[in-house]
Amino acid sequence: MTVHSIDPRTGATVSAAEPTPADEVGRITAAAAAAAPELDRRGRDFRARLLRAIAARLEERRAAIVALGQRETGLPEARFNGELTRTAYQAEFFASVIEDGGYLEATIDHAADTPMGPGPDLRRMLVPLGPVAVFGASNFPLAFSVPGGDTVSALAAGNPVVVKAHDSHVGLSQLAYEAIVQACGDVDAPEGTIGIVFGTEAGAALVADPHVKAVGFTGSLHGGRALLDIINARPEPIPFYGELASVNPLIVSEAAASERPEAIASGLVTSITGSGGQLCTKPGIVLVPKGTGGDKLLGAAAALVAESAAQPLLNARIAESYQAITASYTAAPGVRELAVGTAAPESGSFGSPRLLEVDAADFTPAVAEECFGPSAIAVRYGDAAELRSALAVLPASLAATLHTAEDDPEMDALVALVAPLAGRLVFDQFPTGVLVSWAQHHGGPWPSTNTLHTSVGATAIRRFLRPMTWQNAPESVLPAELRDDAAVPQRVDGRLRP
Amino acid sequence: MTVHSIDPRTGATVSAAEPTPADEVGRITAAAAAAAPELDRRGRDFRARLLRAIAARLEERRAAIVALGQRETGLPEARFNGELTRTAYQAEFFASVIEDGGYLEATIDHAADTPMGPGPDLRRMLVPLGPVAVFGASNFPLAFSVPGGDTVSALAAGNPVVVKAHDSHVGLSQLAYEAIVQACGDVDAPEGTIGIVFGTEAGAALVADPHVKAVGFTGSLHGGRALLDIINARPEPIPFYGELASVNPLIVSEAAASERPEAIASGLVTSITGSGGQLCTKPGIVLVPKGTGGDKLLGAAAALVAESAAQPLLNARIAESYQAITASYTAAPGVRELAVGTAAPESGSFGSPRLLEVDAADFTPAVAEECFGPSAIAVRYGDAAELRSALAVLPASLAATLHTAEDDPEMDALVALVAPLAGRLVFDQFPTGVLVSWAQHHGGPWPSTNTLHTSVGATAIRRFLRPMTWQNAPESVLPAELRDDAAVPQRVDGRLRP
Repeated sequence: MTVHSIDPRTGATVSAAEPTPADEVGRITAAAAAAAPELDRRGRDFRARLLRAIAARLEERRAAIVALGQRETGLPEARFNGELTRTAYQAEFFASVIEDGGYLEATIDHAADTPMGPGPDLRRMLVPLGPVAVFGASNFPLAFSVPGGDTVSALAAGNPVVVKAHDSHVGLSQLAYEAIVQACGDVDAPEGTIGIVFGTEAGAALVADPHVKAVGFTGSLHGGRALLDIINARPEPIPFYGELASVNPLIVSEAAASERPEAIASGLVTSITGSGGQLCTKPGIVLVPKGTGGDKLLGAAAALVAESAAQPLLNARIAESYQAITASYTAAPGVRELAVGTAAPESGSFGSPRLLEVDAADFTPAVAEECFGPSAIAVRYGDAAELRSALAVLPASLAATLHTAEDDPEMDALVALVAPLAGRLVFDQFPTGVLVSWAQHHGGPWPSTNTLHTSVGATAIRRFLRPMTWQNAPESVLPAELRDDAAVPQRVDGRLRP
Repeated sequence: MTVHSIDPRTGATVSAAEPTPADEVGRITAAAAAAAPELDRRGRDFRARLLRAIAARLEERRAAIVALGQRETGLPEARFNGELTRTAYQAEFFASVIEDGGYLEATIDHAADTPMGPGPDLRRMLVPLGPVAVFGASNFPLAFSVPGGDTVSALAAGNPVVVKAHDSHVGLSQLAYEAIVQACGDVDAPEGTIGIVFGTEAGAALVADPHVKAVGFTGSLHGGRALLDIINARPEPIPFYGELASVNPLIVSEAAASERPEAIASGLVTSITGSGGQLCTKPGIVLVPKGTGGDKLLGAAAALVAESAAQPLLNARIAESYQAITASYTAAPGVRELAVGTAAPESGSFGSPRLLEVDAADFTPAVAEECFGPSAIAVRYGDAAELRSALAVLPASLAATLHTAEDDPEMDALVALVAPLAGRLVFDQFPTGVLVSWAQHHGGPWPSTNTLHTSVGATAIRRFLRPMTWQNAPESVLPAELRDDAAVPQRVDGRLRP
């Protein structure tokens, strides 16, 4: 069945793609497998050039990407320009990560006597896994899709990539794929370095394919579970790196609510409504103290939400799901609607921003379910015990945010409560906006991810590498980075040298 | 049903333990969960002292451990003394790993302008996961059991541990557990830091227990699969680090077979028969060239095997399985028996060393199945194509070994063929004997392990840690290791400083 990408603002078809037949998926993964040893052999400098060429070829297409992307997703121009900048920067960042070489974890133990007798020469580093399947995300049609973080970190590590294009933006996927193909040509990369498939069945075939050695996925818990079932049925299990569901609690302390209610309200509403609330780090649950400070904060937030326009959502399915989940929230016992944005147009797939409120005593897992779209629920707590019981209802998240005051008496208790619930702790800022950098971590305990890994930042590369140790190897067979005095960080006989 | 550990040499019961009831398992894991935050808070120096106390308390019991261990396992005294030395050294090694602090991967990106606008202060490091379940192995009753690598790396990381004692050595497990309990007392560790359970059902309950956050397992593919099924049925999946099946191919080049057939034969037979062949790195498949050199090598090896005594195997189940698998080998088309060691005694659980031979053309997956015990199959290859086709039959392994000559013309081709098949490449030595060190890797592609991790060496600690990033955090809430100029290796603004 032909895949159609629809303009959510109008319902008009923008682009279409034929689903990739199973035998074609097999040919694409076989080409990727054939390319794998050569992509490894070409070395880090070659792959850094490939990544920089990808950044340049994306930049070259900026106007076309931004124009088509707005139509396929309904996301605004500024967001698309920003996402393209981020995506190109990300490719360049991984070029610098592989040039640095620390990611290889090169480690040398020279032969020496040990308490167990003579020890051999041992040299360890990380090597590529082989072809990686990458699933494009609906909400980041560049940064987490065809040319996104999974793709460039897998390529950086030395692995060919086959992307499953997201149905919502097949035109943009094709455009970004062509940019990568052209970049591969620029540096004469091996045939099979990049591939693309379309359609749900092709995606399932990719995950089951014996040539595929790892999967990167950003999407729903439901979609992730379905792919995990395919992996669990493979004769050879492979790593599945899923970024799944996340409610990203934001906790406002009593002192912070008294000190700066309007400032927090303003930042919060921006964070909830940006990109139509369709960000994996949107703060969907906001814990606000009962009393004057909290009332002021939510009053200011409600006023801002009420003025907010209905926004196009990424596709009809997401818009329907947004309606259904917000309706189930408002139907739940004790939930009050504080504000709704302007009404959605009759046609197209839109969502109106919503701010809801519930007392901690009425806060249940049903209300703590992730809602993809421009909504948030404020949970009002009267004391530390109510805050603790509300936090106990929450599933773990990618990010948790604390707004506190200086010398806040609640600080230490809040950090201890919240740290087990998230992969990133944000203080007095907002969780949306995940910088690509060395120290970034975009992952967290189940159900936010199913692994201990990150999909943003330098260490995302490690997902696509495996350790290998050479014992008593002649220098001629060692990778360059494992020779004595190679120009990469090494730990030698237990001592780290940069 | 009471668990009995039997002397395989006599069939007599040596020790017994009552299976741990399910509610008791729950109490033990709850105590572990309660201990977790405190064990983290105590810091690295405290945990280094705990590990050194464990080493000392094990040493103190050396005579009792060696005496009881020989009876429960049939392994010789020298092996037990060596294993105790290794196990104590391993605890001390992890003490030095955590004192070094590089394992935390502390990374700081100071707030700075970026191409995407102002970037926040981001600080990342690894934090403990929570209670870890460790499954003792039959074949390393110390080094991979109660006081073994999984336990001390999990404790080093800051996690409480609950061990499932292996049925084959419950007395030794109890003895080692008491040593750890005493060590915990020496440093006043929190209640619940270490726990132990007995019996298959208690092991299954442990893996299903919601307090348990990761599992370390060394054992059979079958046993690992059963535990993985339990994990896949958990509401919250957790990491399962299984070290499973491994045939560890050893490849002798044409030149090496001509140059030093007797030396290779001698090392090989030692490696096959040591510890009754019950080592996860035993070279079970040996690829030997056809022709004079290979004939000489196998002639010498057969003579040594024929002189080798039948050995007690760890338990009756392993002895039965050894008989069954070697019988299925010899029944397979084209398999020839080159030598059998002395006959097993009438009573007890013994296995006679065996050396088999098959032509590459007759080498099938059935003959490539792992055999736990003192046997090996020589696969004879006539040329590079036959070698390649034999290697294509092999599952991946923990280790692969190459014996080559100086300036061996086959070297590069062999390395390229064999590297994808193993986690450790050994040159001109033997794969048994896995040194505990910084550069060690004891893991490999499926089915040798189900993950990208190691169960031996410094990086084994990473299995029990998760990344966490602090964004814009006040210094007072940061872990000591993430403050500016902390005395651990840090990557600061992209630059590594030891």
